[in-house]
Amino acid sequence: MILTKSTKDLYEEYTLRMKKIADIKYAAAVLQWDEETYLPAKGAAFRGRQLATLSEIAHEWSIDPALGDLLTTLKERGDLETSGQRNVTLSLEDYTKQKKFTPAFIRLLSETTSRCFHTWIKARTENSFPVFRDDLDQLLQLKKQETELAGYEQHPYNALLDQFEKGATVSLLDKTFDQVRGPLKDLLTRIHHRPQVNDSFLHRNYPKQLQWNFGMEVIRHLGFDFAAGRQDISEHPFTTSFNKYDVRITTRIDEHDLANMTWSCIHETGHALYEQGLPEEYYGLPLGEYASLSVHESQSRLWENNVGRSLAWWQHWYPVLVTYFPQQLGDVSIEQFYQGINKVKPSLIRTEADEVSYHFHVMIRYELEKSLIEGSLKVADIPAYWNQRYAEYLDVKVPDDKQGCLQDVHWSHGSLGYFPTYSLGSFYGAQLFQAAENQDNSIKTSIPEGNTVPLLNWLRQNVHRHGRRYTSEELCKEATGQTLDIQYFLHYLLDKYKKIYNF
Amino acid sequence: MILTKSTKDLYEEYTLRMKKIADIKYAAAVLQWDEETYLPAKGAAFRGRQLATLSEIAHEWSIDPALGDLLTTLKERGDLETSGQRNVTLSLEDYTKQKKFTPAFIRLLSETTSRCFHTWIKARTENSFPVFRDDLDQLLQLKKQETELAGYEQHPYNALLDQFEKGATVSLLDKTFDQVRGPLKDLLTRIHHRPQVNDSFLHRNYPKQLQWNFGMEVIRHLGFDFAAGRQDISEHPFTTSFNKYDVRITTRIDEHDLANMTWSCIHETGHALYEQGLPEEYYGLPLGEYASLSVHESQSRLWENNVGRSLAWWQHWYPVLVTYFPQQLGDVSIEQFYQGINKVKPSLIRTEADEVSYHFHVMIRYELEKSLIEGSLKVADIPAYWNQRYAEYLDVKVPDDKQGCLQDVHWSHGSLGYFPTYSLGSFYGAQLFQAAENQDNSIKTSIPEGNTVPLLNWLRQNVHRHGRRYTSEELCKEATGQTLDIQYFLHYLLDKYKKIYNF
Repeated sequence: MILTKSTKDLYEEYTLRMKKIADIKYAAAVLQWDEETYLPAKGAAFRGRQLATLSEIAHEWSIDPALGDLLTTLKERGDLETSGQRNVTLSLEDYTKQKKFTPAFIRLLSETTSRCFHTWIKARTENSFPVFRDDLDQLLQLKKQETELAGYEQHPYNALLDQFEKGATVSLLDKTFDQVRGPLKDLLTRIHHRPQVNDSFLHRNYPKQLQWNFGMEVIRHLGFDFAAGRQDISEHPFTTSFNKYDVRITTRIDEHDLANMTWSCIHETGHALYEQGLPEEYYGLPLGEYASLSVHESQSRLWENNVGRSLAWWQHWYPVLVTYFPQQLGDVSIEQFYQGINKVKPSLIRTEADEVSYHFHVMIRYELEKSLIEGSLKVADIPAYWNQRYAEYLDVKVPDDKQGCLQDVHWSHGSLGYFPTYSLGSFYGAQLFQAAENQDNSIKTSIPEGNTVPLLNWLRQNVHRHGRRYTSEELCKEATGQTLDIQYFLHYLLDKYKKIYNF
Repeated sequence: MILTKSTKDLYEEYTLRMKKIADIKYAAAVLQWDEETYLPAKGAAFRGRQLATLSEIAHEWSIDPALGDLLTTLKERGDLETSGQRNVTLSLEDYTKQKKFTPAFIRLLSETTSRCFHTWIKARTENSFPVFRDDLDQLLQLKKQETELAGYEQHPYNALLDQFEKGATVSLLDKTFDQVRGPLKDLLTRIHHRPQVNDSFLHRNYPKQLQWNFGMEVIRHLGFDFAAGRQDISEHPFTTSFNKYDVRITTRIDEHDLANMTWSCIHETGHALYEQGLPEEYYGLPLGEYASLSVHESQSRLWENNVGRSLAWWQHWYPVLVTYFPQQLGDVSIEQFYQGINKVKPSLIRTEADEVSYHFHVMIRYELEKSLIEGSLKVADIPAYWNQRYAEYLDVKVPDDKQGCLQDVHWSHGSLGYFPTYSLGSFYGAQLFQAAENQDNSIKTSIPEGNTVPLLNWLRQNVHRHGRRYTSEELCKEATGQTLDIQYFLHYLLDKYKKIYNF
């Protein structure tokens, strides 16, 4: 039957199926967004089962053998134009990956993570890792099983890494982190021997409504399209998309911390601009999706750090900020402000870390997870391992589990293998930003004028519009002329902090 | 295979299926709620297709022959306890009804209503019925086809009425409306000959935030559980529920109209209290659903009118309201306020109508729809028919289509046969309220103290907890001792307006 159909008809059938799967996934995303923003307290239980049902449908449709047949036939015929062929190739890869997991395994994983999430919340509230231990251990066993089902070469952790970052492996990441560890440690030491900069003005009283208004002005000027998205408040800032015309970001506001709101707004806007820039015509298809998690993170980190923590950008924005907070910032010069917002001080919490120490948080987690998966570290020994590494890498003493190994939600979601993309994102971000500045002279001159349109246009052209057409490395090469080279990132940091800390 | 399974297992399988269908329907409800409250402008198109996919799944699962087999077997065995048996009976009825429509017909209907909705908006904007005419005519042809597919006795309109109010027929409704038309017309005439009461103070300037705060205080005191629901702002107030622990209401606020916000809040709270009072254990099953649309409307109208427009209730609330708006209401006595909020004046817009003239709006629509379906009225002649009836029944001249036959959204949704439930709701509401007062003495004495707990308890006990166990008429009889008797409603109105207009 399938053999008698035209390629055009088969491709049409394939896209219809993919769009319907996307409808379900995005419907689930709406329910999740709502859960984080507006869900009344008692509504969580039923919301959980509604989400489970949607996931089940999406997974069922994703592994439908009829879809597999379509994909195999289209792939074998090989007579589609380039974009169509690329969609089919990627969808077939996804299908083959998904197919390795039985619905029963998916359900068990979903149930276990759901339980883990609640145990993690309880453990955090009670500030006690042992509360989380047994459930995390069960989840770890499932993740190990997942590596076997998915299959891998060399190291089981590769199977998990590959889920979040196609092609990422232990040997590649080890090499990458080896390249940054030393230089970053040196940089920390040099900064440590310099007089510390002052950032106390960031902790004066900044009324919430004014912070919100300033954040909204920034977001709008960065190019976020409010007719195709919105910002709300949530416990933890995040970005989600239901299609390129409905991209939602959230922030949180602490009256005594201007930094928290400001850079979470810019960070999430970076993610959102990417989503709003994806090609509409590929809704539901790989070419309509983001390239990878590290590329997604490159967009958020580029805007947050390379733009949003630069002196150039604040040339325009600092005077604006002072009009919002004349009393709080009237006695702070732009140079003092710039130094303050770039203060480097190793600390306990990853999400609040500066640009230098940030990557040690990621490396600790990466090494820890690798050891867990290969079996050289036991779940029960996580706190001791964690605390020892924080002392070794960052010279900080972890006072309790809440500020230590319980700080992040990811494990309870089953996201082992996720963290490296945070560092890779920064590395790609620095390289992309440099390439953009090299290729378009107007970017450097327009930023101090508060005009980031040339930069956004460059990203739209070189990153966003491609969707998932290229892998991270291919995309990096297309956009910058070479694959990831850590020197861009290191050079950016060294150059920046030399000036700030005057060494 | 099915024959060898135990009834317990079959019932379990049936409930599992029903709960999953409910998950999909409620997920769609979340997307719809979001569409009315927070959706960015450009997000509408993709949201439309996401909703269509969810509806398609829900319909597909609802007419799955395997579900039909389960239901038939369970029904035939007849060995379930009462509640189980009732669930099965109702589900089988639903299944049989749904089964009459092919997926193709459902899709065509969905596409046509979707188009009609946009044409209706356009027609309203251009204030021109002819813009809507052709699409409405196509929809009418489909609705006629629907009556044939669904089947009916005596009058094709019965097939449509029955969808919204099981058991409602043209002959029953004609009889009911015949009973109220004369007395209501008399009442209007008597009021018309009395000096008009003054309600101009309702149109002074009432700042939005203060209105919102007052509305929230009222809603909370009426018993709305904010841990199991929330209120937001939307263009048109509505209530939606994703389960009894997540019930959402909306309101709108006009700075120059205190009435709009106040009674929409109370009205929607009436709907919401019903949803929050449905039995949790029957999630997804008929006994967990509301009895009928008229019973749902009885709850909103009872709280809005019998409580919320009574002198007794305002004994407590008027002093509270004055603390919110001392300047606007300082010169208005509670008696003047009570008269003003109950001003009777035939007008053009149903949703803004007083308790007396309201039902003429419903009757006009009912008679018009009946004529359309039986073919004695053509779509092109709707405006002339409409305007003639408004002159005849309400003595008002319709200046344009926007304030005439284009005012309500329902037709564009395909909801023909819906309007009678608005009047039935008022009639049931009055009868239920009278029964509640008769059966529990504390209700009458507690309302002026601002305490509506006894009333809510009575409704929980006599209406809410039953879900769909009884039909409207059975429920009315269970709760009040007799089926619908229009005299309760007429007596309530006559008694009220005699005092207000002093005749």
